[in-house]
Amino acid sequence: MKAFQIGEQSGIQSLTATTRPDPVAAAGQVVVAPRLISLNNRDIQILRGSYGAKKPQERVPVSEGVGIITSVGDGVTAFAVGDRVISSHFVNWSGGDFGYHAFGFDLGVTHDGWLAERVAIPAHALIRVPEALSDAQAAALPSAGLTAWNALVEVGKVKAGDLVLCLGTGGVATFALQIAKANGARVAITSSSDEKLALARTLGADITINYRTSADWAAELMAQTGNTGADIVVETGGQGTLGQSIAAAAVNGRIVIIGVTAGQGLSVPNYGTIIGKNLTLKGIANGSNAMLAKLVRAVEVNKIDPLVAKTFKFDEAPEAYAYFAAAEHVGKVMIELA
Amino acid sequence: MKAFQIGEQSGIQSLTATTRPDPVAAAGQVVVAPRLISLNNRDIQILRGSYGAKKPQERVPVSEGVGIITSVGDGVTAFAVGDRVISSHFVNWSGGDFGYHAFGFDLGVTHDGWLAERVAIPAHALIRVPEALSDAQAAALPSAGLTAWNALVEVGKVKAGDLVLCLGTGGVATFALQIAKANGARVAITSSSDEKLALARTLGADITINYRTSADWAAELMAQTGNTGADIVVETGGQGTLGQSIAAAAVNGRIVIIGVTAGQGLSVPNYGTIIGKNLTLKGIANGSNAMLAKLVRAVEVNKIDPLVAKTFKFDEAPEAYAYFAAAEHVGKVMIELA
Amino acid sequence: MKAFQIGEQSGIQSLTATTRPDPVAAAGQVVVAPRLISLNNRDIQILRGSYGAKKPQERVPVSEGVGIITSVGDGVTAFAVGDRVISSHFVNWSGGDFGYHAFGFDLGVTHDGWLAERVAIPAHALIRVPEALSDAQAAALPSAGLTAWNALVEVGKVKAGDLVLCLGTGGVATFALQIAKANGARVAITSSSDEKLALARTLGADITINYRTSADWAAELMAQTGNTGADIVVETGGQGTLGQSIAAAAVNGRIVIIGVTAGQGLSVPNYGTIIGKNLTLKGIANGSNAMLAKLVRAVEVNKIDPLVAKTFKFDEAPEAYAYFAAAEHVGKVMIELA
Amino acid sequence: MKAFQIGEQSGIQSLTATTRPDPVAAAGQVVVAPRLISLNNRDIQILRGSYGAKKPQERVPVSEGVGIITSVGDGVTAFAVGDRVISSHFVNWSGGDFGYHAFGFDLGVTHDGWLAERVAIPAHALIRVPEALSDAQAAALPSAGLTAWNALVEVGKVKAGDLVLCLGTGGVATFALQIAKANGARVAITSSSDEKLALARTLGADITINYRTSADWAAELMAQTGNTGADIVVETGGQGTLGQSIAAAAVNGRIVIIGVTAGQGLSVPNYGTIIGKNLTLKGIANGSNAMLAKLVRAVEVNKIDPLVAKTFKFDEAPEAYAYFAAAEHVGKVMIELA
Repeated sequence: MKAFQIGEQSGIQSLTATTRPDPVAAAGQVVVAPRLISLNNRDIQILRGSYGAKKPQERVPVSEGVGIITSVGDGVTAFAVGDRVISSHFVNWSGGDFGYHAFGFDLGVTHDGWLAERVAIPAHALIRVPEALSDAQAAALPSAGLTAWNALVEVGKVKAGDLVLCLGTGGVATFALQIAKANGARVAITSSSDEKLALARTLGADITINYRTSADWAAELMAQTGNTGADIVVETGGQGTLGQSIAAAAVNGRIVIIGVTAGQGLSVPNYGTIIGKNLTLKGIANGSNAMLAKLVRAVEVNKIDPLVAKTFKFDEAPEAYAYFAAAEHVGKVMIELA
Repeated sequence: MKAFQIGEQSGIQSLTATTRPDPVAAAGQVVVAPRLISLNNRDIQILRGSYGAKKPQERVPVSEGVGIITSVGDGVTAFAVGDRVISSHFVNWSGGDFGYHAFGFDLGVTHDGWLAERVAIPAHALIRVPEALSDAQAAALPSAGLTAWNALVEVGKVKAGDLVLCLGTGGVATFALQIAKANGARVAITSSSDEKLALARTLGADITINYRTSADWAAELMAQTGNTGADIVVETGGQGTLGQSIAAAAVNGRIVIIGVTAGQGLSVPNYGTIIGKNLTLKGIANGSNAMLAKLVRAVEVNKIDPLVAKTFKFDEAPEAYAYFAAAEHVGKVMIELA
Repeated sequence: MKAFQIGEQSGIQSLTATTRPDPVAAAGQVVVAPRLISLNNRDIQILRGSYGAKKPQERVPVSEGVGIITSVGDGVTAFAVGDRVISSHFVNWSGGDFGYHAFGFDLGVTHDGWLAERVAIPAHALIRVPEALSDAQAAALPSAGLTAWNALVEVGKVKAGDLVLCLGTGGVATFALQIAKANGARVAITSSSDEKLALARTLGADITINYRTSADWAAELMAQTGNTGADIVVETGGQGTLGQSIAAAAVNGRIVIIGVTAGQGLSVPNYGTIIGKNLTLKGIANGSNAMLAKLVRAVEVNKIDPLVAKTFKFDEAPEAYAYFAAAEHVGKVMIELA
Repeated sequence: MKAFQIGEQSGIQSLTATTRPDPVAAAGQVVVAPRLISLNNRDIQILRGSYGAKKPQERVPVSEGVGIITSVGDGVTAFAVGDRVISSHFVNWSGGDFGYHAFGFDLGVTHDGWLAERVAIPAHALIRVPEALSDAQAAALPSAGLTAWNALVEVGKVKAGDLVLCLGTGGVATFALQIAKANGARVAITSSSDEKLALARTLGADITINYRTSADWAAELMAQTGNTGADIVVETGGQGTLGQSIAAAAVNGRIVIIGVTAGQGLSVPNYGTIIGKNLTLKGIANGSNAMLAKLVRAVEVNKIDPLVAKTFKFDEAPEAYAYFAAAEHVGKVMIELA
């Protein structure tokens, strides 16, 4: 089969085309033929060597996609050849609380991922895609979508009428916008680009703030919300934005910490505000398979259609990575297999 | 002022027109001139003597409405004459868990309610109505709306993709339908009337079941949901429907118990199913002022417009009661003051 | 190996001694040599044919025990020969919410259990027993102990100062008593025997009620608690006691439904009290592996030593069943292997 | 009456003896004669002008104590002259979530507090002290005790077997130690003094770390806990200790932020660990009256007796402040009235 693997050199140019034997479905596994796969920020970080302690050389990268089962191993009864499926990338986080076991089996990091013509996946991590969902609706749910769902629903306890603040227009942020709207919330979103903010409004954003022209965007949000602020902040910005996120949060607000910039310390001037507003800050890393099943259902019921910035052919995977890394797009960057 | 009060005889004909001195705003209170008030099932029960231990004779009835403040007592700083407000009817349940103190100050039961030209209310129970809301959007929130909110959001933890089951098309059930839809849920609803079910579909109901033609409506719901059932059941039916509600619930489902038929014991054949599905049954009585504030926000953000069956004039209050008691309507029965 | 299996005839006399080939550890499994095993009410029900839809003939029964690993299958890295372990009996309920998958792999029901010289168990269901715990402290945790833990900690949210009500002195109830005391709660317990109540007091029970002499034991509990009642009721009694449990519960109380009597409908006169007190009723079936790990830690830190009524030899397993079924004992009935 | 009030100059020497007219119980209020009052860190900060935006000159300070009701105002029915009571110092935070309204009526800050022969308090903030509790057991519950309870029970969800980490041996930390033990948890505590650590062990501390000799106390805790860390960190240290608290926390740990050093920014090197461990950081400010009622019950059931460092006479209040400010003591500093 054709595949891409992670090479030695640093940076996204280390993505290397290769051929490999087709994987065989071991007991409890299936083999999937990917149809549409989706890139995430961590795929770039992995190639740059800034994700985790060690660059996973020779690994097939990419942690999310949708495909068709081509073979099933011994003992697999819940799935059959021909089923269209997605998979948790933290293969062993079935449900309940996060644990370090999640990091132990991570598609695209510790085990071969989706950027190949075939990928072997334990059946217990799979979820069947409802017929009503397109490939594009399904492909980006396991990583970007699930992170947004965990942030808003599991941690944030979002409900109709809440104000959700999304930082920027990346994959997690735009999914968060859409999931928040599906749950009846109001959404504020920041960007350095008026074009991106206009796009966010087409997805339902209620308040848009250009942080280039409104550097103190927390104050701007407070001004636009009668000084109440955001019930939930989807903190994808990292250490550099946390201080403003604290300032922008409502009393009893929940700041869900997703983004971190490698090698940078945190420095915030308003630590006391965490007490003054009784804020909750909670770090998350993706989510469980049980959460993913709920997200799939929410997407189907609410017909959530993720914004796709651009779709590349399989052979153009390096171009897809470069396009993603340039960070000029809004929404998801995808790669389709014929 | 003109008012109605509860008379001696039993039944809704005991509603009696009267005149009284205008109430005076004591310290911490305001006086409100009602503009639109709304009837609930318990208003009927109160007149029939089947609500609580003792019929509250000479009480001005009705627990919810919207009005304008006409005077404020000493120490009231958060509200002013001219403000348009609603009020919790459990005046002293500000927030947190339910407690018996809620029953101790209950508008329309222990203290005079809304069916008069003026009503005195402690300021701490008031919520200002946003300008964007019509009187009709506001008037029915404190009782029917808040009960539905408590059931779905506080107890049920409703989220996008959940399936919510509403029993019948009464005031709580139709609010529950609308609040569930605002939170991105799917809604199933039962009725004995195809006309009422058609009306429910216009409010967004996804699954409608006529329990006259489908007597085993739990089995019908299971058949229509791939045997998964309802995540949340808004149990307004009372003892007679609980067995079917248990049968219709999903694994880990939450059955929120609101309705009870006086003097009738409970008898269900499927007690073991509560264990087999790990169900939660939770009784609620209305909700807190803190919940009501969240509901108002959700109504504004999602433009929820309650279904009004019919609106009567103040002098027609007895006709409004009779119309409500006939139970042929769908949605809210309201009374407007000139 | 020597083993007992479930025979054709009904009743506990269908327990049959047999010999079988030793189980072999398949990939992902270990084989355990039981040292001490523990009986539960459902073991009796299984033999009587009243547990689940179908009696599991030829199955090795018993769902909890402690033993030593004698061999490990391919891919098992977290455990080694010689490790002392216990196991979830719902093998596939790792964490998170209950699901029907729990019933799909149930030691002693769907798969061979502990009443043999060897038992094969998937490694992901195992928990290593800390050195500080005796075999007797460990053997009864997976079924009786875990059910009590789920009821009190996960559902009941027990905390110091709460009042916990346990019905009777069976295995779950006595564990609940001890776990409640470890969490700083006060405990009330009922029994028909003053001797059993005296024994409960030695385990820390604060309030003991003989329901033979105090038939209205709910009223008796209210009288002894200044009319506040129980925050948590561990409802092991079944349909026949639920009405009294509702009457004995505090405002906002949680009644955890564990016991059910086959073939009996529920009939309670005080359904409205569920609303009046805002009660929560929640059915549970055992618990997850993640909960079991927390229980083991709690037992170690608090040195919880379960009450053992009597310990039998392996060959005396039929006598152990008969002793258990007579229901004259207090605490756990155990079987030790040489 | 005799009282102390806050003077103009900065520092604890601004505490000024004075005489004032006795307060009169307005409608809804009672007047209390304090018997034993208790100092807290914020009492020092208030005198130093570093608590809140503005120093409350002429205010009678101190936020917690126990006393006897000497008169009741109109409408007060739940309390009578002679009742022994304590009071929430956030008078209007009855229950539910924290809100800014808590800061609006704060005994010893916005309204006159306990350091006088009489103090007027709204009746809805009072809790009757059970007979079984001594004055010393009751006096320090509303501020130090309640903060520890909120941290451990409400936010931390402490349960038997958890590991709780307390920083230092101040009033909140020693209460947290005792409340954690009452809930069946294991406790680790840090101090710069071996003497203080020895005292902590007499209160039940399981792990004691001298952070002078073990500067990297987080690593020391990890070494002593098999690398698992603390489930709950009671973060009273402020910005300077947060980085170590993050390092010392277990996966899914909860760090409850209580302490803040005025005018100091936060700087931590291990921000990414918040994600890597899925940590929760939550700021709290005291707690609600509903929580205080639960704490009182827990203290009674578990016979928690707070450590009192030293008790001063009323006239020695300045000495008590100086003794407290020197920070050489362990436990509570109290002032008794004859």
